[in-house]
Amino acid sequence: MSTRSLHAFANVLADEARRIVRSRLRRGPSVRRKADLSPVTDIDLAVERRLRALIQRRFPEHGIVGEEFPRHQADAPFQWILDPIDGTLSLTHGLPFFGTIIGLHHRGRPVSGVIDFPMLGDRYHAARGLGAWRNRRRLRLRDVPAAKLPDEIISAADRSRFAKFGSAGAFDRLLRRHRHVRGYYDCIGHAYAAEGVIGAVVDYGVKLWDIAATRLLVEEAGGRFVIVRERGHGPATEYGIIAGKPRVVRWLERQFGVRSEE
Amino acid sequence: MSTRSLHAFANVLADEARRIVRSRLRRGPSVRRKADLSPVTDIDLAVERRLRALIQRRFPEHGIVGEEFPRHQADAPFQWILDPIDGTLSLTHGLPFFGTIIGLHHRGRPVSGVIDFPMLGDRYHAARGLGAWRNRRRLRLRDVPAAKLPDEIISAADRSRFAKFGSAGAFDRLLRRHRHVRGYYDCIGHAYAAEGVIGAVVDYGVKLWDIAATRLLVEEAGGRFVIVRERGHGPATEYGIIAGKPRVVRWLERQFGVRSEE
Repeated sequence: MSTRSLHAFANVLADEARRIVRSRLRRGPSVRRKADLSPVTDIDLAVERRLRALIQRRFPEHGIVGEEFPRHQADAPFQWILDPIDGTLSLTHGLPFFGTIIGLHHRGRPVSGVIDFPMLGDRYHAARGLGAWRNRRRLRLRDVPAAKLPDEIISAADRSRFAKFGSAGAFDRLLRRHRHVRGYYDCIGHAYAAEGVIGAVVDYGVKLWDIAATRLLVEEAGGRFVIVRERGHGPATEYGIIAGKPRVVRWLERQFGVRSEE
Repeated sequence: MSTRSLHAFANVLADEARRIVRSRLRRGPSVRRKADLSPVTDIDLAVERRLRALIQRRFPEHGIVGEEFPRHQADAPFQWILDPIDGTLSLTHGLPFFGTIIGLHHRGRPVSGVIDFPMLGDRYHAARGLGAWRNRRRLRLRDVPAAKLPDEIISAADRSRFAKFGSAGAFDRLLRRHRHVRGYYDCIGHAYAAEGVIGAVVDYGVKLWDIAATRLLVEEAGGRFVIVRERGHGPATEYGIIAGKPRVVRWLERQFGVRSEE
C-alpha cells in the first residue's frame, strides 16, 4: 500500500467527516459533559463512529485510537489517530474554527495527516515525503530573517494551560517580549503555522489526537515541530508543542526553557 | 433621504471596498509605518480614497472622517466615518480577519453601519430602526440566563490595551473569573458580538472609526453597547467599549469598575 493511496484514503475519511458535520450542524448539536467535564456533542460521536467503521472495513488489520471511544488493536503497526471535532467550544457557539483531525502513523512515524475545517471549507493535509497542502495549494514555509522575527504572529494557548505545566512565568515573559501574541486555539493555530500565516504556535496541554496531523503538516511544509513537555502517561499524556517557521520555533524553545540542538 | 436609501448607499460603498481589497490583495499589499508606527498599506489608502470620492460625488454636503486622511466638513450634520481596513495585522499576514468599517451618523446619532469582511465574504450591517443583518440573515440577540453566563465566550483585546487605561488588574481578574476569554481582535470581535456567537466583546484603545458601526449593529440586534472609558480628545480620543448580550455586558461593566444603571 503506497503512501499516496493511504493519504487518499485519509482524504476520503475527511470528506465523509465534513459531510456528517455539515448535515448535523443544520439540526444544531446536542452537547453533554464528559467525565473530565469537557464538552462532547452528538456530532463528535457520529463522526468518530463512522470513521472507525470505514477504517475497519478497508483496513481490518489497522489500529485505531480516537478521542471518544476505546482504543482498537493497540499493537498493530498502522495506527489511525482521530479527533472527530477539535475545537468543540467553537462548534457549540457557532464559530467556524473547529476541525476534524486524522493522522495515520506507522510504527509511531507519521504517514498521512489531515486537518479539515468543514465550515471554512479548508483542508490542510500532508503525506510523508510528498508535501503539504491547503486544499490544492502546496504549502512551503519560508523561514524568517532574524530582523523580521518581531513582526511574526505567535499563537499561544490560554495562560491556564501553561500554568498547569509550571510555565505561566514563561508565558508572561512571552507577552512582554513579543508584540504579536494571539490565540488561534485548537487545530486552526496548527494549520496556520503549517501555512506560515503565523510564525509559530505554542500549544500546551494537547493530547495525541490533537497533534496527530501537526508534525507532518509542518515538517512537510518545511517547518520545525518539537515536543517540549510531556505530562502523564499512556493515552492521557499531555504534551507541550511548538511548531512553525524554524527560526521562530527555536526562539520560542529558548523562551520556554528548552535547550535546542542548535 | 430615507434611512433605507442611506443604508443602501453604505452597502454600495462596502461593495466597492470589497472589490478593491480583493483585486489588490492578489498583487500583495505594500506596507509602511505611519507616524504612530502602526502599519498602513496601499490597500487602506486606495479604499479610503475611493469611498471619499463616491461620498463627495453623491452627498457633497456630508462630512467625512476617516482613519487615513484629514477630516472633511466637520460641521456637516451627516458624517461618514470610515476605517478602510480594520485589522491590518491580519491583512498583511494573510489572515482573513480584517474588515472595512463604514458608519453614517446624523448629529452624532448612528443611522447606518457596515462591517464588511472581504476575504470571508461576510457583511454585518444595520440601519437605525430597521434591524441588523449578517448578509441576508436578520440578527436577533437572545440574552443569556444568569446560570449560562459562564458558558459564554468573551472576546478581549490584548492586555497591553487595558494596561494603558490602568485596567490591567481588571483584565487579569477577568481571566481568573471567566473560563472562556478569547481574543477575536479588531472588528471581527464586534461582528461576533452582534451575531451572538460570543457573549460580548470588551475592547480598549479603540478610536471613533473602529466603533463606527458597532453600536448600531449591536443595538439593532437587541444587544447592549456602552462606552466605559475615554482618553484624550478630538479625533485622537481612545475609547474602552463593551458590547454584546445585555447580561454579559452588564457583568463586564461590573468587572471593569463601571456602575451600570441597573
